[in-house]
Amino acid sequence: MINAKLVGQTHANHQTIVEISETVAFGGKELVIIAGPCAVESAEQMETVAKKLYKTPIQALRGGVYKPRTSPYAFQGTGEIGLKVLKQVRQRYNMPVVTEVMCISQIEVIAEHVDMLQVGSRNMQNFDLLKALGSAGKPILLKRGLAATIEEFVMAAEYILSHGNPNVVLCERGIRSFDNYTRNVLDLAAVAALKQITHLPVIVDPSHAVGKRELVASMSRAAVACGADGLIIECHPQPEQSVSDARQALSLEDIVTLVDSLKPIAVAVGRIIAEEMGVGNIPTPIPLVA
Amino acid sequence: MINAKLVGQTHANHQTIVEISETVAFGGKELVIIAGPCAVESAEQMETVAKKLYKTPIQALRGGVYKPRTSPYAFQGTGEIGLKVLKQVRQRYNMPVVTEVMCISQIEVIAEHVDMLQVGSRNMQNFDLLKALGSAGKPILLKRGLAATIEEFVMAAEYILSHGNPNVVLCERGIRSFDNYTRNVLDLAAVAALKQITHLPVIVDPSHAVGKRELVASMSRAAVACGADGLIIECHPQPEQSVSDARQALSLEDIVTLVDSLKPIAVAVGRIIAEEMGVGNIPTPIPLVA
Amino acid sequence: MINAKLVGQTHANHQTIVEISETVAFGGKELVIIAGPCAVESAEQMETVAKKLYKTPIQALRGGVYKPRTSPYAFQGTGEIGLKVLKQVRQRYNMPVVTEVMCISQIEVIAEHVDMLQVGSRNMQNFDLLKALGSAGKPILLKRGLAATIEEFVMAAEYILSHGNPNVVLCERGIRSFDNYTRNVLDLAAVAALKQITHLPVIVDPSHAVGKRELVASMSRAAVACGADGLIIECHPQPEQSVSDARQALSLEDIVTLVDSLKPIAVAVGRIIAEEMGVGNIPTPIPLVA
Amino acid sequence: MINAKLVGQTHANHQTIVEISETVAFGGKELVIIAGPCAVESAEQMETVAKKLYKTPIQALRGGVYKPRTSPYAFQGTGEIGLKVLKQVRQRYNMPVVTEVMCISQIEVIAEHVDMLQVGSRNMQNFDLLKALGSAGKPILLKRGLAATIEEFVMAAEYILSHGNPNVVLCERGIRSFDNYTRNVLDLAAVAALKQITHLPVIVDPSHAVGKRELVASMSRAAVACGADGLIIECHPQPEQSVSDARQALSLEDIVTLVDSLKPIAVAVGRIIAEEMGVGNIPTPIPLVA
Repeated sequence: MINAKLVGQTHANHQTIVEISETVAFGGKELVIIAGPCAVESAEQMETVAKKLYKTPIQALRGGVYKPRTSPYAFQGTGEIGLKVLKQVRQRYNMPVVTEVMCISQIEVIAEHVDMLQVGSRNMQNFDLLKALGSAGKPILLKRGLAATIEEFVMAAEYILSHGNPNVVLCERGIRSFDNYTRNVLDLAAVAALKQITHLPVIVDPSHAVGKRELVASMSRAAVACGADGLIIECHPQPEQSVSDARQALSLEDIVTLVDSLKPIAVAVGRIIAEEMGVGNIPTPIPLVA
Repeated sequence: MINAKLVGQTHANHQTIVEISETVAFGGKELVIIAGPCAVESAEQMETVAKKLYKTPIQALRGGVYKPRTSPYAFQGTGEIGLKVLKQVRQRYNMPVVTEVMCISQIEVIAEHVDMLQVGSRNMQNFDLLKALGSAGKPILLKRGLAATIEEFVMAAEYILSHGNPNVVLCERGIRSFDNYTRNVLDLAAVAALKQITHLPVIVDPSHAVGKRELVASMSRAAVACGADGLIIECHPQPEQSVSDARQALSLEDIVTLVDSLKPIAVAVGRIIAEEMGVGNIPTPIPLVA
Repeated sequence: MINAKLVGQTHANHQTIVEISETVAFGGKELVIIAGPCAVESAEQMETVAKKLYKTPIQALRGGVYKPRTSPYAFQGTGEIGLKVLKQVRQRYNMPVVTEVMCISQIEVIAEHVDMLQVGSRNMQNFDLLKALGSAGKPILLKRGLAATIEEFVMAAEYILSHGNPNVVLCERGIRSFDNYTRNVLDLAAVAALKQITHLPVIVDPSHAVGKRELVASMSRAAVACGADGLIIECHPQPEQSVSDARQALSLEDIVTLVDSLKPIAVAVGRIIAEEMGVGNIPTPIPLVA
Repeated sequence: MINAKLVGQTHANHQTIVEISETVAFGGKELVIIAGPCAVESAEQMETVAKKLYKTPIQALRGGVYKPRTSPYAFQGTGEIGLKVLKQVRQRYNMPVVTEVMCISQIEVIAEHVDMLQVGSRNMQNFDLLKALGSAGKPILLKRGLAATIEEFVMAAEYILSHGNPNVVLCERGIRSFDNYTRNVLDLAAVAALKQITHLPVIVDPSHAVGKRELVASMSRAAVACGADGLIIECHPQPEQSVSDARQALSLEDIVTLVDSLKPIAVAVGRIIAEEMGVGNIPTPIPLVA
């Protein structure tokens, strides 16, 4: 039905592995948990987050520096300063980093600073951006559009692959519906369906899906149980003070507890959560960006 | 926010237990798995289903005898003949049975034959039916409407409780959305939310939610992982020959395999699946209804 | 595609005419405008409404006496007292009246008091009610369900016709969507589509569709322009004091102004608005119900 | 509620006028009807369209040259060749032209060839594109996103205005819903709402909204009746042979008939349709682009 020559599942059980660092890869037995704040606010904030998380099974960091906001008057992100913060924390804690790219002209500079470029929901069918990401040279995290059908989502990935970049990870993050009790409706059947009809890794963003922190843990567990290859979860040193999406951010303590609860579920479906890191000296005490 | 005096969670962690037989109850540590065909087609069909399932952790049977169908020309169910089949198989295999009630005049006769009355999605706001079920004398399985908000769902249950029946189990079964890849969108965040804002048991119907049998197992696992108190799953001795909803019915073999896969997930979230029954002699070989 | 033997358009341009009084009929050249409050609150209220409207092109009255409410604790309507009020005002002002029927047991008493029985959105697929209305002996106003497809809507009407009642008028009243700026989304393309695929009259309820009085007039004009056979509009002597749906009720002055604005649009699409009535003595000063 | 400093309606009944040529302006008494094919296929095609339409009340032409398509393998538009065709037909028939811009790098070349730049639904929240259009030097036709709330739509316009371009026309073109009988659901209440909460002109695209040509005329009439400032309608010399969206294109004969039917409705709501042009010599017989 869906004519996706490159993204479509052609061989039984073929699974593409997307590596974002020497030790972190999507699509294998090990689930990839990405965590971090909605927005990079300061070097101190990211330092606090990374220092707390780098020894846990959380393997990668997120943090927006170019922020798509409904209002032009809302905080638009810290831009290149934020990119430098991300690069520093990435090196300091040896954790790969993902951040959102909003337009073609940002691709090059973002690709120099981070390990994976995220296409946000609003840009899922920004076709020129997708085409340009075909030659970005870095893996892409493609989020499902707010009202995108599964077919449209698959074909958006096909744009990237057909323009030269095979390293695409799909991300279900909730779709628009009529009930505003939750921010969006997390469509986990889409995850199961995507795993059947494509060979790409599929992860879940429970934070944007539900928009309420008290529902994030249960949705994370459900995502792992239904076969997701990973999670991307928002957390913040002081959730209530987050400059954006404060209502959905977990505290650093809560996300560590959450990740612990995923282990037996991962095992139950034939997957594993990464081992906690050893004592792990922080390589070099690079001075922080101001 | 939601003004549900009776259904709302008033005491921390209070959980109502809804018993449908001496050994089967919703809301406790043990999950309740209900299985059976969309429609009761014949005594032989139900006999085949029950004989296969009664020794497994599946504890209750489902089967529609009054069928809500979009077209008046579609099969409308076997009615009272079907009720007799249900009663017989229930006694023969000592498995409680649930079936749908569509109007007030059916309440009495259905309540005489089965253990739990289901209110279907289309009738979730059939308020006179809800009021009448307040005095049905049997537990109610209340399915969420196709486009019902969480608040409307909770208030529909409030109608039943406020009219005298405290034994209500809520069932998430998918909501309408824009993508027809799946029949509906399974809203598991609603399950987690309902567990937080009410004290009623909440189960999930993955079959109607997705409408494709190849997605039922993964959604069942996700439902257990996010805290559902049970599942109601469609199965059929010969799925392709089901008179209704053939596309979503599991074979009897597949549903047994599925239930096995739920055990470690249940344990991971502090729940259990029922023990498989012992050799279990079928009590009395009652002759089947013609 | 839609297999509606009785409701489907079989002859080119065939149009069923549904009469609700000697002078008021849906489906002809003359549009039918129904107006009145959400709920019948008192005899005085209905008297005020009727006295203001009976000389205008508004030909019929509405007023709920059995009210489907989300909460069991909300006002449930005045019931039989309200029915008597409706019957009195109907005779006194010679205006046919429509009110909602919520369950089978109400059909007989409602049919004795009013000229047309309305099936509300929540009951559009209450199939036993639809079947019973097949022998109600009065015309039916069938409202589209909140999330009903056009096919489901047509097949709901087919239930009524196939059970013996050919006098059905369809009513588009808005469907659920993701934006809560308006209460629902008025789907006028459904009106045009229904006029093409069925021979039944189709009217529009702009009040429930938009839920904001300042949008009702423009939607009424749009409905007439796209071919609707009539309108059902909420109004109230003191809109802000309406016991239900106060936000969407027009004042009596505003509805008269609105109806005036429809005339040239009706003419533009080959239809007419009823003539204003002459001086029209009120037949007999029947004492009002207390 | 909606914090749109520039787009919001601050003065009672203030209405921005957006001129796209010396004689064509949105927001005044005269409605603006734009017509043309989904995609510019050839010079001959556009010549045929313009020759038929330039003497009618249709004042402007549309035609896509950069096409946003779900699949990367679908026809992507004729690009710069198409732009030259548009420029030629625009000069030859003295009709302003609108075409879609998909990315920042196309802005300059498109602005050199046409009179108005369209932002398509998929790019409504492509914020970098919106910002760049702030300095495009040409009026913008901003289409509502498939699942954009009214607030998000208004704020998208605010991005353009706050970056320097006051000449924005809003376009309602249908939103995603659960019923696939029509392609989308035309939300005319949004048109009425936008006219109340902003001072920008608002037009309607009935073609993309319904996706079926037999419903376009009735929705066009409804749009005019509810206060739209104009329409953008797809037509094609041979609709069935259109390379894209063939199912929704009107024939040239049908669109002329349709526009005629709008006149009395426009008058009924205090507006007018442009006068038909005089015999109008085609200025200079410029040779067509190959």
